[in-house]
Amino acid sequence: MKHERGLLIVLSGPSGVGKGTVRKALFECKDTTLQYSISMTTRSPREGEVNGVDYFFTTKEDFKQRIAENKFLEWAEYVGNYYGTPIEYVEKTLQEGKDILLEIEVQGALQVKKAFPEGIFIFLAPPSLKELQNRIETRGTETEDLIRNRMNAAKEELDMMDAYDYVVENDKVDSACDRVNAIITSEHLKRERVSNYYKRMLEAE
Amino acid sequence: MKHERGLLIVLSGPSGVGKGTVRKALFECKDTTLQYSISMTTRSPREGEVNGVDYFFTTKEDFKQRIAENKFLEWAEYVGNYYGTPIEYVEKTLQEGKDILLEIEVQGALQVKKAFPEGIFIFLAPPSLKELQNRIETRGTETEDLIRNRMNAAKEELDMMDAYDYVVENDKVDSACDRVNAIITSEHLKRERVSNYYKRMLEAE
Repeated sequence: MKHERGLLIVLSGPSGVGKGTVRKALFECKDTTLQYSISMTTRSPREGEVNGVDYFFTTKEDFKQRIAENKFLEWAEYVGNYYGTPIEYVEKTLQEGKDILLEIEVQGALQVKKAFPEGIFIFLAPPSLKELQNRIETRGTETEDLIRNRMNAAKEELDMMDAYDYVVENDKVDSACDRVNAIITSEHLKRERVSNYYKRMLEAE
Repeated sequence: MKHERGLLIVLSGPSGVGKGTVRKALFECKDTTLQYSISMTTRSPREGEVNGVDYFFTTKEDFKQRIAENKFLEWAEYVGNYYGTPIEYVEKTLQEGKDILLEIEVQGALQVKKAFPEGIFIFLAPPSLKELQNRIETRGTETEDLIRNRMNAAKEELDMMDAYDYVVENDKVDSACDRVNAIITSEHLKRERVSNYYKRMLEAE
């Protein structure tokens, strides 16, 4: 449906699960209309980095002022510099009817969810959970302690999952990519969104 | 995800929208695992029709008894015969982890929704609504009365839409089919379903 507001797609999951690889593959899909969420940072631009393309570069003073004014969907400090997702750029892109993808670790995603609950939160699950499953199902080849440790790790991951709308297993990058695209297609077809579109159209009679 | 309970997909929409054509195309997709919802009827089998494949054939007495026992997701009487969707077959198929497609007119779909709210309700929208939109947007070529009549028809369709989960425009059969398949893929990735799967797996420790 045209003229519709875009969707904020949050791709997240545990460290090492392959978020960056799946994100890259999503942008390599032909015909993709996904926009990249541009972060703001206080670190210096590296050679070739362009303001407003790779990052929005700013000063620490300005960044702190923006934090005080709630101008970030999420932010964090790493090694003396600030990084954050500016609401203004996200809002502008959504208003233009474009979907925007934010790839982010779990803690950041939970911050985004508080600030922007209408986002679509996708948890990328590691295939090792499935391996664990297979091991548990076949049984007996691992020590009881090792199985217990893995179960605990899986349980921690499950707790993080509960804040998300969808779980996509990253078994193969192409499959994960197809699943994320199916979610985006499907979300655009939700009756609440489409019927508002028809209603707006009819009200414009 | 394996071992998961199947989904009941209800494909519905106004008369003439092309439900049958889209349903047929869905079953012609390669690799489809969709099952067809088999209706029960009191009419006599036609040449070549097989009980349990085309229909479940039964007597009026038995059918009425089943109505009294709430054994249908929906039922209706046409030209002296009864037609209905038996819950038992649907339940059995879902338990086997297979998705089942029910193609049905709007009144029937609303009955199914009462009996089985966890179904996925897809409203197939006619492209004529879009044509109407174009006419309204370009304006002035139609009489005011005609525009008003069409607007009223569109508003009645909108009211029916509100009971559904998704709206798929049937502009081209292949596109509509792709959208329905994206919805089915996406619904299987919903966190509620997948995390239950993981939890069952972990509880089986």
